[in-house]
Amino acid sequence: MVAEDEIRSGIQQTTSTARLENPLVGSITNAVSMNFVANAQLAVGGSAAIVYLADEAVDLAQAGESFYVNMGTLMPLHEQSIPHVAKTMHELCKPMILDPVGLGIGKLRTNILQNIKPFKPTIIRGNASEIIALAGLWGIEGKADDSKRAHGVDSTDSVEEATGAAVALARFTKGVVAVSGESDLVTDGRIIAVSEGGSPLMKNITGSGCSQGGVIAVYAAVASPFVATLAGVQVYNLAGRRAAEKTFAPASFQIAFLDELYQAKPTNIGGNPFTIREA
Amino acid sequence: MVAEDEIRSGIQQTTSTARLENPLVGSITNAVSMNFVANAQLAVGGSAAIVYLADEAVDLAQAGESFYVNMGTLMPLHEQSIPHVAKTMHELCKPMILDPVGLGIGKLRTNILQNIKPFKPTIIRGNASEIIALAGLWGIEGKADDSKRAHGVDSTDSVEEATGAAVALARFTKGVVAVSGESDLVTDGRIIAVSEGGSPLMKNITGSGCSQGGVIAVYAAVASPFVATLAGVQVYNLAGRRAAEKTFAPASFQIAFLDELYQAKPTNIGGNPFTIREA
Amino acid sequence: MVAEDEIRSGIQQTTSTARLENPLVGSITNAVSMNFVANAQLAVGGSAAIVYLADEAVDLAQAGESFYVNMGTLMPLHEQSIPHVAKTMHELCKPMILDPVGLGIGKLRTNILQNIKPFKPTIIRGNASEIIALAGLWGIEGKADDSKRAHGVDSTDSVEEATGAAVALARFTKGVVAVSGESDLVTDGRIIAVSEGGSPLMKNITGSGCSQGGVIAVYAAVASPFVATLAGVQVYNLAGRRAAEKTFAPASFQIAFLDELYQAKPTNIGGNPFTIREA
Repeated sequence: MVAEDEIRSGIQQTTSTARLENPLVGSITNAVSMNFVANAQLAVGGSAAIVYLADEAVDLAQAGESFYVNMGTLMPLHEQSIPHVAKTMHELCKPMILDPVGLGIGKLRTNILQNIKPFKPTIIRGNASEIIALAGLWGIEGKADDSKRAHGVDSTDSVEEATGAAVALARFTKGVVAVSGESDLVTDGRIIAVSEGGSPLMKNITGSGCSQGGVIAVYAAVASPFVATLAGVQVYNLAGRRAAEKTFAPASFQIAFLDELYQAKPTNIGGNPFTIREA
Repeated sequence: MVAEDEIRSGIQQTTSTARLENPLVGSITNAVSMNFVANAQLAVGGSAAIVYLADEAVDLAQAGESFYVNMGTLMPLHEQSIPHVAKTMHELCKPMILDPVGLGIGKLRTNILQNIKPFKPTIIRGNASEIIALAGLWGIEGKADDSKRAHGVDSTDSVEEATGAAVALARFTKGVVAVSGESDLVTDGRIIAVSEGGSPLMKNITGSGCSQGGVIAVYAAVASPFVATLAGVQVYNLAGRRAAEKTFAPASFQIAFLDELYQAKPTNIGGNPFTIREA
Repeated sequence: MVAEDEIRSGIQQTTSTARLENPLVGSITNAVSMNFVANAQLAVGGSAAIVYLADEAVDLAQAGESFYVNMGTLMPLHEQSIPHVAKTMHELCKPMILDPVGLGIGKLRTNILQNIKPFKPTIIRGNASEIIALAGLWGIEGKADDSKRAHGVDSTDSVEEATGAAVALARFTKGVVAVSGESDLVTDGRIIAVSEGGSPLMKNITGSGCSQGGVIAVYAAVASPFVATLAGVQVYNLAGRRAAEKTFAPASFQIAFLDELYQAKPTNIGGNPFTIREA
């Protein structure tokens, strides 16, 4: 089992390197939180480029270091662009981060997720209901409708309930899965890290999960999938806790949160509380 | 005529219940203010889910308690999705809130509005020019070009000038119509409430009207259309007045406004000044 | 050569007139920064209306005083709407402002830019890499791939390196070209103005360039292209410098920046440091 110290120092180096190297990260992401995603990526050192079209996504997949795919607010063109970019990243052995937002709503989302299963996204990030539903949809653990996913894009399952699905998904993709909630779980199928912090106000601002996926993509451009994902979770928990010390209301919280994301020091990101255990 | 006290207590209960029940509200809304709509819905207690596609909208119409349709930044796919959701909500007898943003610009907007006329949206919210133009388009009062609507998405008519159109529309839909302006008018075709407050700065932030429509949809999930609409108007007037006490400039005003929306107490929302009269 | 005093007084009058006349400005602009564009246009006195569809864009082109076209986050429908609006504005002799965001990514962007070349946009605004690439694409100066444009939507060339391309483009369009960077260059092909100010934090908020294009479109509705463009650049440099005096982090900077944009006095906008020289 990897030593905790080693992970902490990896996180520290990742967040520092991202700021120095300013990696180009392409994204296909939903219209609700597109602006938040881009600003969060810039805040941690990335260069953000967001597109809709398949050939533009492939151009960015080739030019950039990693790619973020978020499945909210789908349009018909996503039927082409998402599988194209998933295939391209898979062939180029570059990290793709998938956020299966809203799984269970509509047919296109389900079809696209079925189509990209063979390309095994390097990192999958979602709330508990989405992770349970995706593991079920892909026939990896449970059934597609095992999640109590009846509340739109919000989770109705706990992180604890999604642990089995997360580990099974990570073993299938040979990648990493993150489940967001009160505590956040990150697993590569062998070890499980649980990161603490954040604020209940995170649920009151739309796109906090989406923008975290975008930030993980920036870190994945310069680090291993596990360290990159945990770094993204850690910086969110650190910045969220600090922002909540400044304000009690969601809009000023979001401003304070993005400011803290920008100002977070690598040592503090690495030092944010987390525990590790075997999966 | 309904007693004012009864309405105030209904508003108080509505805004309190929304926070307790966290109702799922689907939305089709414009790209300019999508983020503002979702954050405003979260601030008053709703669970926000925004989509483009017809089958996703119908899924949300079935799973959710109410639906918000805003006609800004139309795309070809809206020709299907908006009528589908209007028909579904009508058949399910669930409240749909319509915001006919930009009526008069382009053909698709006019066509869609003609197509959904039979499904009589429960609540219609717009500025004075949009309400006058919609009553004219539907042949209910006046003519389609009676509005001096020559200024894009901004109103060129006063709320007072739109009173007849609003009452006629409400009688046609057997629902509720809200007209936003310096004072805001809400009518069910029998009584007219005029709510006071807000701030001239509301006009300087894009999407203040759109996000109000989204908030009314949250309240309509837990209350009668008239009380829900007036509650949405009241909370905006309260939060707008309070935010304007904190700042004189629009961006910090928007942050303060969303914070006040989140912090507004049901008693204060009910207690915000309004008058009622017969239509 | 035009006297500097005359230009400063023109800028002062432009920014004052925009607030008095509240000109209607249509826009086709990218989804990432659509909200920022609209709020910036409102902050300087414009009436903002953003659309996707060709016939809606043409309606706004006819009803409004100027039009802003930003090429980020393209969708298939833009293949029709952007050339249509460019042709309409050209025929109506009304100013169109073009921002060739992301030139080099995908085929559609290149095709559309080739198609609108005959309609000679009145004002072209971009970063150094985009201006160099556009001059090359249109065969006016250099080659299409002369730019070291390998970093998505961020520039890899300096403003100084783009001077020749900017002057050549302005002479071709008989209009104005602005190149944004640490210092900002504005040229009509005969004289070159270099405006100082802003803040390094501008690069850390997405859409600062896009929203500047939207603001220039507001000013172009009430002034000559050169004065309008320089006014837009000046107000950004003024507001950026002032916002940077209030905060060190990007999200609070963006709020402070929009507030300063709204509060900037015409005399101060005209008085912001710039130099002029012959091209």
